[in-house]
Amino acid sequence: MNFLDREFFNFHSNKSIEERAAIFNRHGRIFDMIFSQQFNRPTLERLFEITNALRHISKSKEGCDFLKGLLSHKKAMLYFAQPSSRTFLSFQNACHILGMATSEIRDTSVSSEVKGESFDDGLRTFSSYADLIIMRHKQANSAERAAWLLNSYSKRPVPILNGGAGSDQHPTQALLDIYTLHKSFEKSGGIDGKTVLFCGDLKRGRTVRSLAYLLKNFENIKMIFAAPKFFQMNEDVLQFLENHNMPYTIETESLKNVLGQADAIYMTRIQDEHDTATGESACVDIEQFKLKIADMNFVKPNAAIMHPFPRRDEIDVEIDSDPRAKYWRQERNGMWTRAALIAYVFEVENKILNHTTT
Amino acid sequence: MNFLDREFFNFHSNKSIEERAAIFNRHGRIFDMIFSQQFNRPTLERLFEITNALRHISKSKEGCDFLKGLLSHKKAMLYFAQPSSRTFLSFQNACHILGMATSEIRDTSVSSEVKGESFDDGLRTFSSYADLIIMRHKQANSAERAAWLLNSYSKRPVPILNGGAGSDQHPTQALLDIYTLHKSFEKSGGIDGKTVLFCGDLKRGRTVRSLAYLLKNFENIKMIFAAPKFFQMNEDVLQFLENHNMPYTIETESLKNVLGQADAIYMTRIQDEHDTATGESACVDIEQFKLKIADMNFVKPNAAIMHPFPRRDEIDVEIDSDPRAKYWRQERNGMWTRAALIAYVFEVENKILNHTTT
Amino acid sequence: MNFLDREFFNFHSNKSIEERAAIFNRHGRIFDMIFSQQFNRPTLERLFEITNALRHISKSKEGCDFLKGLLSHKKAMLYFAQPSSRTFLSFQNACHILGMATSEIRDTSVSSEVKGESFDDGLRTFSSYADLIIMRHKQANSAERAAWLLNSYSKRPVPILNGGAGSDQHPTQALLDIYTLHKSFEKSGGIDGKTVLFCGDLKRGRTVRSLAYLLKNFENIKMIFAAPKFFQMNEDVLQFLENHNMPYTIETESLKNVLGQADAIYMTRIQDEHDTATGESACVDIEQFKLKIADMNFVKPNAAIMHPFPRRDEIDVEIDSDPRAKYWRQERNGMWTRAALIAYVFEVENKILNHTTT
Repeated sequence: MNFLDREFFNFHSNKSIEERAAIFNRHGRIFDMIFSQQFNRPTLERLFEITNALRHISKSKEGCDFLKGLLSHKKAMLYFAQPSSRTFLSFQNACHILGMATSEIRDTSVSSEVKGESFDDGLRTFSSYADLIIMRHKQANSAERAAWLLNSYSKRPVPILNGGAGSDQHPTQALLDIYTLHKSFEKSGGIDGKTVLFCGDLKRGRTVRSLAYLLKNFENIKMIFAAPKFFQMNEDVLQFLENHNMPYTIETESLKNVLGQADAIYMTRIQDEHDTATGESACVDIEQFKLKIADMNFVKPNAAIMHPFPRRDEIDVEIDSDPRAKYWRQERNGMWTRAALIAYVFEVENKILNHTTT
Repeated sequence: MNFLDREFFNFHSNKSIEERAAIFNRHGRIFDMIFSQQFNRPTLERLFEITNALRHISKSKEGCDFLKGLLSHKKAMLYFAQPSSRTFLSFQNACHILGMATSEIRDTSVSSEVKGESFDDGLRTFSSYADLIIMRHKQANSAERAAWLLNSYSKRPVPILNGGAGSDQHPTQALLDIYTLHKSFEKSGGIDGKTVLFCGDLKRGRTVRSLAYLLKNFENIKMIFAAPKFFQMNEDVLQFLENHNMPYTIETESLKNVLGQADAIYMTRIQDEHDTATGESACVDIEQFKLKIADMNFVKPNAAIMHPFPRRDEIDVEIDSDPRAKYWRQERNGMWTRAALIAYVFEVENKILNHTTT
Repeated sequence: MNFLDREFFNFHSNKSIEERAAIFNRHGRIFDMIFSQQFNRPTLERLFEITNALRHISKSKEGCDFLKGLLSHKKAMLYFAQPSSRTFLSFQNACHILGMATSEIRDTSVSSEVKGESFDDGLRTFSSYADLIIMRHKQANSAERAAWLLNSYSKRPVPILNGGAGSDQHPTQALLDIYTLHKSFEKSGGIDGKTVLFCGDLKRGRTVRSLAYLLKNFENIKMIFAAPKFFQMNEDVLQFLENHNMPYTIETESLKNVLGQADAIYMTRIQDEHDTATGESACVDIEQFKLKIADMNFVKPNAAIMHPFPRRDEIDVEIDSDPRAKYWRQERNGMWTRAALIAYVFEVENKILNHTTT
């Protein structure tokens, strides 16, 4: 443990997540985007508005050129030390929409880490050249450490956006998911009161975890967790739901048993890259937790089917053409909500919102 | 075979190449650029004009800034699952000339394919973020499948440009080759009536194959195929030429025997990356099919020497300074013709053509 | 040895470094930036002024947008055949500051070199698409060869900037170092007359070597070389200093013995990637050549502590907060001095200098 390790340990361990959220938020606005607990309902609704406006403005060339002028003076660094194409591309294109030039580290084998540089020094290096750092890292708390480091030791304000850190948090995925729910239920009373069914590898999927935390901001949400016992939601999330009086049910036999109750069906793949060498997940039968074309008869007529992607065979490709399949637009929403978040972090959202009203 | 495999198989197998070309062309204009058979002479001549105009306009800073404004509202995705620097860089710079922001997948080991994602899902993901996909893939028909997929299942129109698929097609290489021939013979009656000599690995070089198809659009072309028997042109191409009454001769002894007859000499390297483990091409003597500095005495005074690059030793480096060596400008033409194609696909070519006349 | 090998050998061996510097400089101005010997004092001072102006202008959005318009018509190619994140990112962001689009080769395994292409052909390819080539290569003289090649054989003027070639030269690192010294001593009489202490792997660190050459442009510089015998400065550099009457002392026992004499302390890491298989550097005790927090009591109150990065443990992380630690701003200076150099090479520096005066 060096000097910074100790300082960060003190910060991280001695403060509650709410205290740390307040620090990363700065005067109630998101500055560093580290974990889902930083979102509250007014901020989410603000981000929905910005996202809607971005999508609307971008329909014309003039609109696109206007958007490209907003952050043309800023440069973003995408530091992706863990394989990802989807999150990477969606963030990068979000930057380009707002006119930011981007540079990237996508493969740590070409970086200075091979010369023995510390994570902290690498981060401060990136912050020397960029005005924004978007990062994904296999180590838990790495984004939080990065934000803490720059807040504590760097004079230039360089926000950190967490694009996935370890297995715990992926807050911009949660943001795009909640926006997709918002749009799906726009004409049917909004997210409040809906039943959200999660299915698949609930144990290890950080998207499910992040979204469950975010749903706390809405009222009368019911959750159903459908997965074999091995893949069921961890105790800490269930405890969180109980503490906040958020009702849930557990289904371990078959997706079909609960399919008809759901307003949103959030499918996920088995994350076998987290298996140990014994490949334990291969022994679990998940056949009853796949969504087949024939199952669509049991799905509510206005339900929203979602998936964070990549998918394997947990959703039949034939379902893609069903109007209830929202996962492709969910994916595109990823780019728009990330662009909205960046615009918000740099406080240019009023220019966007005012532009649409003319 | 999943659902989409079957659908694509039906499309690909039940329609002639002309029918498919018509589909990818949309109202007679190129939309997806998949195979050389989509080009006709008026389109080629249109693309020559656009290329000329781009080169002319780009000579001034004002011109460059004008061009950068044309597609500043579009974003391109370069999906290169097969090693390539030349095609990649030339496409990327073509995009930048027109003001398009680019993002890229150049190494599939960092992508979601490692998490088990299908080609189709990957493609649709890219189309979620981009307005244009430029792709190279080792699998034959992959670009066609991508274009078919997006045409059939995606609501947003996202053109596909084939940057080389498997060993069969590389249509933008053919386009830059034909433009180079056009410029080389501009003052000597054009391409019609010329004799084009192809030399090297004719069996496995997809550029030769694509260019041979394109030459059908010109009149009275003679072709000479100079290569050892092992590397000679495949039967299907020869059959194509016979069906279209395009005369050709075969030379299997020595390049020198036919050098003096050629108006254009198209040299290619041995593609030993396509060898099987036995390394069969190493056993073939190709010494008689290299172009040496001393051979230049036998080359016509206005001949054009071309090469798709990369080169090994099939052309002496000393020949580079000879005015008949057109391969370096051929390479630069790659960028300009690709920019012209992109401008054409997005229908901004009139802005380019009108700009030059003022 | 092919034709070009011989030609380049003649060029490189028959001309003195001053003659070659004059060729790469073109009418006394830097065109290709290959080695530190091309800098003279007026050019350095000009570059300091441009750097200051860039930093000043970039403080406002309007200023940034102005800068992005300066080279919006130019495209840069970053050809990095050797691992580097710092130099790469700093150059890339320097390009983006001036509005240049960038393309890159960072991993030669995806390039045509795997298909047997020569260095020269690769270089000419890059020059077909780009207006500027920034390169790093493990081979000594590679940047010089590139510049020589394009000067001799290419019609388009495409400047080469050396981002590190082999173990000998890294001139833009020297430039950012000298700028950092300039800023650090701005209020204390400038660089002239100062004592610069170099510590660490002086034998194999090319940054130290490059900076030692540059210091010749200043008056009454004293140098101290602190390192165990094994890592001491090579004889050729010492000979250079003697030839130019530049006094130096050698310290092989402990950094502490000389710490108090230095105005600038330039720390470096052990470059063990240059070790042979026996790992000789691991046997040398460098404990006495690290800078600890307790040592700061012996450092002059206005001294500047520098490091080219990456660092391991040769500087305590706790020193980072000391105002004498200049290495983080030194790193950021890397981006600004490189932007200044690019602006200078393309002769737009007057636009920059005139902009600040308004």
